[in-house]
Amino acid sequence: MTPHLSLEYRSALADAVGDEHGLNPADLDLIAPRVAEIVAQIERERAAGKRRYRDLPFDEAMLRDVVAAVTRRRGGCANLVVLGIGGSALGNIALQTALNPATYNLLPADRRGGPRLFVMDNVDPVQFAAALDFIEPELDRTCFNVISKSGETAETAAQFLIARDLLQHRLGRDRAREAILVTTDPKSGTMREIVNAEGYESLPVPDGVGGRFSVLSAVGLFSAGMCGIDLAAVLGGARAMSESIARPALRDNPAALIAAIHYMFYQRGKRLHVMMPYAAALKDLADWYRQLWAESLGKRRGLDGREVFVGPTPIKALGATDQHSQVQLYREGPNDKVFTFLVVDRFERDVLIPPAAAADVPEVMRYLCGASLGRLLNAEQAATEYALTASQRPCLSIRFEAVTPEAVGAFFLLYEAATSIAGLLFGINAYDQPAVQAGKDGTFALMGRTGYEGLAAQIHAKKVPT
Amino acid sequence: MTPHLSLEYRSALADAVGDEHGLNPADLDLIAPRVAEIVAQIERERAAGKRRYRDLPFDEAMLRDVVAAVTRRRGGCANLVVLGIGGSALGNIALQTALNPATYNLLPADRRGGPRLFVMDNVDPVQFAAALDFIEPELDRTCFNVISKSGETAETAAQFLIARDLLQHRLGRDRAREAILVTTDPKSGTMREIVNAEGYESLPVPDGVGGRFSVLSAVGLFSAGMCGIDLAAVLGGARAMSESIARPALRDNPAALIAAIHYMFYQRGKRLHVMMPYAAALKDLADWYRQLWAESLGKRRGLDGREVFVGPTPIKALGATDQHSQVQLYREGPNDKVFTFLVVDRFERDVLIPPAAAADVPEVMRYLCGASLGRLLNAEQAATEYALTASQRPCLSIRFEAVTPEAVGAFFLLYEAATSIAGLLFGINAYDQPAVQAGKDGTFALMGRTGYEGLAAQIHAKKVPT
Repeated sequence: MTPHLSLEYRSALADAVGDEHGLNPADLDLIAPRVAEIVAQIERERAAGKRRYRDLPFDEAMLRDVVAAVTRRRGGCANLVVLGIGGSALGNIALQTALNPATYNLLPADRRGGPRLFVMDNVDPVQFAAALDFIEPELDRTCFNVISKSGETAETAAQFLIARDLLQHRLGRDRAREAILVTTDPKSGTMREIVNAEGYESLPVPDGVGGRFSVLSAVGLFSAGMCGIDLAAVLGGARAMSESIARPALRDNPAALIAAIHYMFYQRGKRLHVMMPYAAALKDLADWYRQLWAESLGKRRGLDGREVFVGPTPIKALGATDQHSQVQLYREGPNDKVFTFLVVDRFERDVLIPPAAAADVPEVMRYLCGASLGRLLNAEQAATEYALTASQRPCLSIRFEAVTPEAVGAFFLLYEAATSIAGLLFGINAYDQPAVQAGKDGTFALMGRTGYEGLAAQIHAKKVPT
Repeated sequence: MTPHLSLEYRSALADAVGDEHGLNPADLDLIAPRVAEIVAQIERERAAGKRRYRDLPFDEAMLRDVVAAVTRRRGGCANLVVLGIGGSALGNIALQTALNPATYNLLPADRRGGPRLFVMDNVDPVQFAAALDFIEPELDRTCFNVISKSGETAETAAQFLIARDLLQHRLGRDRAREAILVTTDPKSGTMREIVNAEGYESLPVPDGVGGRFSVLSAVGLFSAGMCGIDLAAVLGGARAMSESIARPALRDNPAALIAAIHYMFYQRGKRLHVMMPYAAALKDLADWYRQLWAESLGKRRGLDGREVFVGPTPIKALGATDQHSQVQLYREGPNDKVFTFLVVDRFERDVLIPPAAAADVPEVMRYLCGASLGRLLNAEQAATEYALTASQRPCLSIRFEAVTPEAVGAFFLLYEAATSIAGLLFGINAYDQPAVQAGKDGTFALMGRTGYEGLAAQIHAKKVPT
């Protein structure tokens, strides 16, 4: 579909998994006209100024601003702490895991592409205290990137208040100001008011782009750039994907295929959508996908207002590790899942399993000798796909030519577009999250925020333990 | 149920979530006799020498051997690399995440309880190469704990061959031998033969204990002990749980309640069992549970041999983080899930959100001032439980008095026992994993192992890409 990624779905077809559990080419033909309409509708929405996530890869001014901010800060920064949650963290984590080594934070500065990175996407006190302990000796060389569109997200607000206080007490107001970069709404909101009043450097959360669609903006890119990831290449990869996801013909449009295949399987009772990378570097792409798919498609009401209680449950897994944890269930449990493997054709590095010096390697291990871990991992993927299809479980694969910034950028845009299309197939609004507010309100109530006394009483009456 | 943990399930009852989606006390009464029989059966099996995982907390000789091995090795060891996968890794990871700080590997040696820990539970070449890069300069102070009952697990065998070769070339055969400790079958198997032939120190994988039930043996405990975790306290916590999980009365037996409640909800179409710790330290307990529940209960055939294709899908989530990722789906998607929160009453450390100096904190953030992150996190849990029950989604909670070795040990035994009981409720064998073999065989075939040529031809004929 692009030079960087390809989609395979023959293991989802009846030929591979049988008529009861597979798709027939005729099924694809049947849904193709509806998908073509949906793709056209999204393009019209786009022309009308909506779906602005689609335009981020082309936003050169945004890239320039992010790169300038990175350039200003990178030299003096030993630690970068991102304060954000949900869409203000998952893309940052996914980029870092995919494109920097697993040992990144452990490496000495001259073997890292930038500062150590800590994405604090929770308000766990033990975890937060441990992170603060670690950075405190280098606090004068630590940058904080606060990411919140409104500033009212309780978790990020709490972290910001703690970090600001720590910086002001330890370094004074001026240097505290310099240590903080805020990614927020450029015009309005509580965090914007704080930025204006206190004079922080800031980057914009783009207008009209929801958190879970924002990875290719300053939200996801600033921390990646700080850690040495080639931002132009990430956006370039997304641009290379951009044309194919606008194609009206179902079979030519990988986003449409992903959406349509998952939608059709959902209608046939396969409501669990497992994404299983066979590469440790890609595991947090699956976590990013998990938010995108769940929060976009899990909806009580259809666009017509009727109650539908619809939504696939995305599940992240990891090959080969989860062969020893989940594959027993995946093969023998209820046939209620669709699997998407992320497969890497060419690993950036490989490790050779030493050739057999006959005496030292027992017969039963000798088949491994002289092979490489990369070959073993990909053999395990193919064997698992074989085993699942033998159990009539449908599978797709996204093949990465290699784990490059381009491929990762392409992946993000591909799944964002698939989500838009799936939203219209399911007949729901993929861009809101009405159910999240109740939990936020409940938190306000239990924390004693003014105006929430009634709800607090209600929660206490329900006797949920607090 | 013990001084360390308590189970709450009122948010799973009809009173909390309505008749359609909640349990009635009468439902519990109805299933109680069957559960009592099952608990009695498990106790009989235990008396007959089965279910030996139940006896691990009482095995003083095992504890003594592990502590002795730890004592011998801990001084000279800067890095401990565990080579294992599935049940030979998940318990190790869960203990480390729960009981050591998230920054553990980053800390200088004098602020750590032992060596840095790397649990290599995959054969990803990029990840493995990065880990080898990191440890190589300290290779002479690195220990490898190879964990494999048989030695034939492809992933662990490959890693072992690579590590042994590296050690022998860099340090010579004698010091290579000293650097490796093998946890394996004490009597037979390929790895036992290697241990005997090459003279490695070894610890036993206990007889009659499957991998996913082995965390409280040398399999899980050696690495934990090396990293300074109090093993006696872990086992002591499990012992404190041991009596209550053998009680015949359903309402007095927390393992039976967990099993029965999840079984009843499964029968009513709630087949997704979400475990959502509200503590970053407990997130890998949920990953450990995920293997235990999936691999034990996901089965094609019942004990009577009939095809059942049964099995709940365990899902790990993390509070508060996943409120911004999954809770939209959890509240508004299909009502097909049961939630178990892991809640911590007393955090080991807490972080204060600074009191408001009025001018500096906008009105909408002021409710946070003077509270702590621990209070905020627990308020978010209660608010989420409230929001889910308001959407008629049933919830349980396991409350940890604190995240201590005792509580973590108790948790392991509680869920192992719940799994045994659930297995008999579902009418399946909870202790085998017949479906895993096909993927292993497929890997052998694709790697060219002698004797698997026919299968290789079959896989290639299916045209699964290799």
